[in-house]
Amino acid sequence: MKKTQDLALWITETPFDGWSALARERSQHALEDFVASAIAGARTEVARKLRETLAPTGSGKASLVGGGLRSSAAVAALINGAIGHTAEMDDNFFPGLGHCCVVVHPALLALGEEKGMRLSDIHDAFIVGSEVMARLGSLLTRDHTDRGWHGTSTIGALASAAACARLLRLSPEATATAISLALSMAAGPKAQFGYDAKPLHAGLAAQAGVQASVLAAAGLTANPEPLDDPNGYLALYGAGPDGGEALPTIGRELAVERWGLAFKRHPSCGSTHRILDAVMLLQVEEPFAVKDVTHVLAEVEFGNVVNLRYPDPRTPKEAQFSMPYCAAVVLRRGHLSLADMTQQAVNDPETRRLMPLVEMRALSTPSVLDPDKRPPHRVTVTLKDGRKLVREVRHPKGTGANPFSPADREQKFHACCDGILPNAGRDIVLKLLRADSAEISAGALMTALRF
Amino acid sequence: MKKTQDLALWITETPFDGWSALARERSQHALEDFVASAIAGARTEVARKLRETLAPTGSGKASLVGGGLRSSAAVAALINGAIGHTAEMDDNFFPGLGHCCVVVHPALLALGEEKGMRLSDIHDAFIVGSEVMARLGSLLTRDHTDRGWHGTSTIGALASAAACARLLRLSPEATATAISLALSMAAGPKAQFGYDAKPLHAGLAAQAGVQASVLAAAGLTANPEPLDDPNGYLALYGAGPDGGEALPTIGRELAVERWGLAFKRHPSCGSTHRILDAVMLLQVEEPFAVKDVTHVLAEVEFGNVVNLRYPDPRTPKEAQFSMPYCAAVVLRRGHLSLADMTQQAVNDPETRRLMPLVEMRALSTPSVLDPDKRPPHRVTVTLKDGRKLVREVRHPKGTGANPFSPADREQKFHACCDGILPNAGRDIVLKLLRADSAEISAGALMTALRF
Repeated sequence: MKKTQDLALWITETPFDGWSALARERSQHALEDFVASAIAGARTEVARKLRETLAPTGSGKASLVGGGLRSSAAVAALINGAIGHTAEMDDNFFPGLGHCCVVVHPALLALGEEKGMRLSDIHDAFIVGSEVMARLGSLLTRDHTDRGWHGTSTIGALASAAACARLLRLSPEATATAISLALSMAAGPKAQFGYDAKPLHAGLAAQAGVQASVLAAAGLTANPEPLDDPNGYLALYGAGPDGGEALPTIGRELAVERWGLAFKRHPSCGSTHRILDAVMLLQVEEPFAVKDVTHVLAEVEFGNVVNLRYPDPRTPKEAQFSMPYCAAVVLRRGHLSLADMTQQAVNDPETRRLMPLVEMRALSTPSVLDPDKRPPHRVTVTLKDGRKLVREVRHPKGTGANPFSPADREQKFHACCDGILPNAGRDIVLKLLRADSAEISAGALMTALRF
Repeated sequence: MKKTQDLALWITETPFDGWSALARERSQHALEDFVASAIAGARTEVARKLRETLAPTGSGKASLVGGGLRSSAAVAALINGAIGHTAEMDDNFFPGLGHCCVVVHPALLALGEEKGMRLSDIHDAFIVGSEVMARLGSLLTRDHTDRGWHGTSTIGALASAAACARLLRLSPEATATAISLALSMAAGPKAQFGYDAKPLHAGLAAQAGVQASVLAAAGLTANPEPLDDPNGYLALYGAGPDGGEALPTIGRELAVERWGLAFKRHPSCGSTHRILDAVMLLQVEEPFAVKDVTHVLAEVEFGNVVNLRYPDPRTPKEAQFSMPYCAAVVLRRGHLSLADMTQQAVNDPETRRLMPLVEMRALSTPSVLDPDKRPPHRVTVTLKDGRKLVREVRHPKGTGANPFSPADREQKFHACCDGILPNAGRDIVLKLLRADSAEISAGALMTALRF
């Protein structure tokens, strides 16, 4: 009955200089990946609307990605979080039951820019935030997201607040309060997948991180143990205080060390990725002609079926959450790229002809949080001659177990900047990200992103 | 499966000049009651911290109650909502499962001040917001709040957004989007009762109303039917899309006409009020000496027991949610006033001596939303000579069925201003509230409240 206090003590007592080289490397890759994803979203309609509508309501020096504007830290976190999530290029963090960078980084960068902190401070706080997200995931289990909560915001708000509390060097008591206040801001149903509201969830969680940590620092009071209170987090959002799935990492290593983040190769819901990877592997391992395909069976976990709501998407936003669309594009082209997420691409008759061939089914496996225990996803491609090509993928490209190469990262960063940030600006951003983080301020990076 | 669309059509198609005299009168009383409650909270520590911390982060001309500051509409709604709720003097709205004014008025007044609207516009939109709150309460039922959700914020966010959509004259589509976006901001567990986070919930719901309506007006997209989506509101916050308790009013009259708001006589959780009224009635009807009391049994509904978490409160905030404390004070003094909500009063040895005599029990009645079907609460005072004095109260003072007299309203307003707003300022505020609302701007009222 002191889960929050335990978290707060871990957050505040872990030494600032004690992270492993692996954790620091993954945090560096995470920040680079968030920045790439935010650049990819910077010229979208939702980014423009958010900047135009909300930026003037904030007063402060926190930069917005794209658009040349500044605002308050809370507004910047909201806008940059939504911008970072709208292209669906940002990471999944499996043990945290959602996207991690996009709820943590926008909050940290906004506060860090306002308070003149360095990227090394951002990295330290990000590692803390990721671990808190994993530990909360372990308390809630996949039951939480299987039921329709969008963990990115419902867990991310608390993780973001924890990271901000670390950044602001709050006391254990104020850190617990920050988490508690963020819990009072934790919302977001999966009913919003396929709409602007989905990336907005990430922004709202980042805004919650800023607001909760700043109000905790100001001395507002909140229940110091809201996680297992009978009217608290686990009771309302989870299976109750006695549930939970123990992760083998807790107290031994960091979740981000054990599993890493799942950086995305494809601009679509992470629930499609193992299948898309499997199709791409089949295309290399057992080449087949698209015209010979009569059926594609995509078997994924139950939670993935919940996420992929659109068998017949009408818009690019719906297409991000459509197995038939994403698989059809990969069948045709051998990859899924940002250029496939336009209205024109979604309307493409050849893609639409292939979509009905794709059938998605839920595996009968139980929903497990531990990425090592999750079943592989399986694609079965049936050809005209009756042959069935089967491929399973357990760890999609970009995860800790199947990591991006340096060239993969470079390619993704370039693809995200393509047509948005000219090469000169892109290369400056990359230089800032890859320099010694103790020497680069959050403000310097955000200034470069205020393009 | 078109609950949201039905709501949006009702919100947008109801004529602006069609409200009954009763609805308009109750809206006028509601605004007066909100203003009184906000004045009562304006000099509290939480008000000071919120203004100092958040006001500078907003840019705009929306006034904050007390403190002489302006900020953005969203920040003003957040701060004024929390200020209005912290003294626990603001209304309950039983069919809406929470406090109504404090989530709707701060949002409407902030937007109304920014956009130069009149108090008559505020009244129109408030009536809409109250009805939406009742209809959502009818969908969720008391199961929602019995389980530990704080309806003030979890339902209030949507009601506030609906009211703001009406104020901003949004289209039916944008109105549905505003409600949908607010649903993505609807949070708040009852674990926070007894802390600053509880009034913050009201502010967060008001902030959600502003943000959701403004973003909907800007054209952001959200699920147009998020209420009964399998991963939506009723599934996650309620007993599912097929639940609900029909209210006899829907489609016939307004909830605010049938039941009114429950304006508060006592500065404590509304769950104490029927019992406190019953004790006060006994003190008149069957006078007894406090020294003769050996036991006080307070029988309330299950949901009230959930709210009253503190049998032995340590702070004024906990005392607001303590039946033993509130009942002990009324036993001693014949009433509960704002002066009883100080640390000194909570520490008073004579009150603390009486508190253990007060026992609270849950009635075995089912949890019903319809105020006419709810059971009365019952107090049984046992005296040294063995006599048992029993009194039931179904409708506490201040409700539609047992309304405040004009003198009651005057007395409450004065009590809320006492020591905070000098008489000259108080009388100006009252004049503005009681003038022809078509002739008074929201900005005029808020300027008077920026004391």
